[in-house]
Amino acid sequence: MAPRPAMPPDGERLAWPPQSFRACLAAMFEVHPDFQPSSVALGDLALCHVRLAADARFPWLILIPRVDGARELEDLADGERDVLMEEVLRAGQAARAVAEALGRPARKLNVAQLGNVTPQLHVHVIARRSDDAAWPQPVWGVGMAEAYTPPDLDAAIGAARAILGL
Amino acid sequence: MAPRPAMPPDGERLAWPPQSFRACLAAMFEVHPDFQPSSVALGDLALCHVRLAADARFPWLILIPRVDGARELEDLADGERDVLMEEVLRAGQAARAVAEALGRPARKLNVAQLGNVTPQLHVHVIARRSDDAAWPQPVWGVGMAEAYTPPDLDAAIGAARAILGL
Repeated sequence: MAPRPAMPPDGERLAWPPQSFRACLAAMFEVHPDFQPSSVALGDLALCHVRLAADARFPWLILIPRVDGARELEDLADGERDVLMEEVLRAGQAARAVAEALGRPARKLNVAQLGNVTPQLHVHVIARRSDDAAWPQPVWGVGMAEAYTPPDLDAAIGAARAILGL
Repeated sequence: MAPRPAMPPDGERLAWPPQSFRACLAAMFEVHPDFQPSSVALGDLALCHVRLAADARFPWLILIPRVDGARELEDLADGERDVLMEEVLRAGQAARAVAEALGRPARKLNVAQLGNVTPQLHVHVIARRSDDAAWPQPVWGVGMAEAYTPPDLDAAIGAARAILGL
């Protein structure tokens, strides 16, 4: 039987679960290729990689927890779920800011974790208004995405990043 | 100027915000009438009133935080949001249990807070499988709800309540 490892010196931490196991899952994380053509990277929050959906019809952010292999909320650790909830709230503020920046202030947020098509755990945060292309239905599967004009894309990315500190 | 109230005796607590304000919002809470015909009450968890959607096509629970006037996640207090996340997880287990009880084990959970039609804050938790009536699309707006048979409704309610402790 291997000897039990000595306690690390003061000021160091044991580098095994839970912290380093989660760190390992974060290090192995890669964005699923499904997100690449349909959204634009905004940066990383404490837990989630954040993207803007490339669909000018809806101010729409996507949060992807950087935890390799996660498919459901239950695949996150307790502390991670609380962080996800905080980041969902911030993404809601950012989606509202994108809506404002595009001159279409939002009246409602839609938040959803579906993943029926793209299995990697992700949360949609979408700012809605009663004259948008899908109201009052959810946005998924409604019509075709419309490309942002370059200035609108810049404005949307800038507004979201300002709120998210990215 | 009114005199500052004396500190309460040891063992008592000041009965003003935050606790009693939130308690007041809970006391004023009523389930929105939209939910009455389309779902069945299962009981109350610490934060949410829980209902089973009256649609035999999908094992589908609805969590309604008992906070009067709440429409968005941002209308909840910080602690309430963490409780909501825990109750979403439990509702996911309950939806899976409903699926098992009906002989159709689920492969995926869908979680969504929309509220475009019914403004009262609520979260859908739905167990999905690849042969269900909407897969891989979300369930909202797809076809018509199908009534449960009485024995299936009893089985679904029993399975959900057992997991939720209701």
